[in-house]
Amino acid sequence: MVETTRRREIEDVASDLFREQGYAATSVRDIARALDIQGASLYAHVTSKEDVLWAIVDRAAQRFEAAADAAETKAAAAHPGDHAAQLAELARGHVRTITQDVGAASVFVGEWRSLGPERRVPILERRDAYERRYRDLIAAGMAAGEFRMIDPALAAMLVLGALNSIATWYDMNGRLPADRIVELAAESVVRIVVEEPT
Amino acid sequence: MVETTRRREIEDVASDLFREQGYAATSVRDIARALDIQGASLYAHVTSKEDVLWAIVDRAAQRFEAAADAAETKAAAAHPGDHAAQLAELARGHVRTITQDVGAASVFVGEWRSLGPERRVPILERRDAYERRYRDLIAAGMAAGEFRMIDPALAAMLVLGALNSIATWYDMNGRLPADRIVELAAESVVRIVVEEPT
Repeated sequence: MVETTRRREIEDVASDLFREQGYAATSVRDIARALDIQGASLYAHVTSKEDVLWAIVDRAAQRFEAAADAAETKAAAAHPGDHAAQLAELARGHVRTITQDVGAASVFVGEWRSLGPERRVPILERRDAYERRYRDLIAAGMAAGEFRMIDPALAAMLVLGALNSIATWYDMNGRLPADRIVELAAESVVRIVVEEPT
Repeated sequence: MVETTRRREIEDVASDLFREQGYAATSVRDIARALDIQGASLYAHVTSKEDVLWAIVDRAAQRFEAAADAAETKAAAAHPGDHAAQLAELARGHVRTITQDVGAASVFVGEWRSLGPERRVPILERRDAYERRYRDLIAAGMAAGEFRMIDPALAAMLVLGALNSIATWYDMNGRLPADRIVELAAESVVRIVVEEPT
């Protein structure tokens, strides 16, 4: 954390509160209190609570997308034609993004519906495009005979459901280190789709 | 649905609203409006919004517990010592419970934190006891050499994360029938833990 601006500090505190007690139950006053400032001072930095939610969700979405881009580029070069290795790389990027900022990730996963319609719709589209990476990769692995026959959309939802649940329970100071969770989760979800060796 | 009482009707309508727009963003007035009655008449049946949330969460918890009890009894008789078959049975019961009342299940999964502390604590304990069934079964399968070596708590969370995500996207009128989802999801999560045949 080299240079945390005031704005970013607000988002971090808000992420934690939204994660603990939910977006709707958290007031701007709660956020201000957690920052030890007056509500009025907070409004110098943000226009509304939804504004803060949007900033958190948008940044989290960008981070998930950037991680997936990087994973796809890396996997295409390192494991061409190996769909299991490509899926593992995608999953690692996803879980790493969660563990690196679990507050923002859990708000992204659990509270994007709380956005107003004009922001919810584009986020829904980005979520769908993101899920499509998993669906398309699973379909390609099936077409290559590398993955078992399973509905790609259902498989993608189960895979992402397993990975996203990490945002609800991951604890930075928990028993398992982040690196270990990243590896175990990635190999676990690949198992959902990969054909068993015969 | 043989005899739906007014109270049950209120819970069903509230479940759908909580699922769509979240508990905190839903008012008693919204629930009354969806039932086409006056807010005041609703208070003849319920004392507060949290009262409705509690009724939904408690009933969902009971249904998950009853399904797991039945699955354990059935699997112990039909598949003694076969941990993979036992886990599949447990998962089928869980997913069937979700698809049979997806509104209540999604509120249970996503909104139990919105309960007040005196109700949140016992629900947290019941959730933990429920998760323990998965942890213990996975640990037993590992001890028997039937499951691969993986942290049982992490594996249980990934399994339940994949299964619970169904509550967020399942649509009764969707493309995949409930029975198919139950089977595909159960076999998918067993794959997370089972040892590959060598």
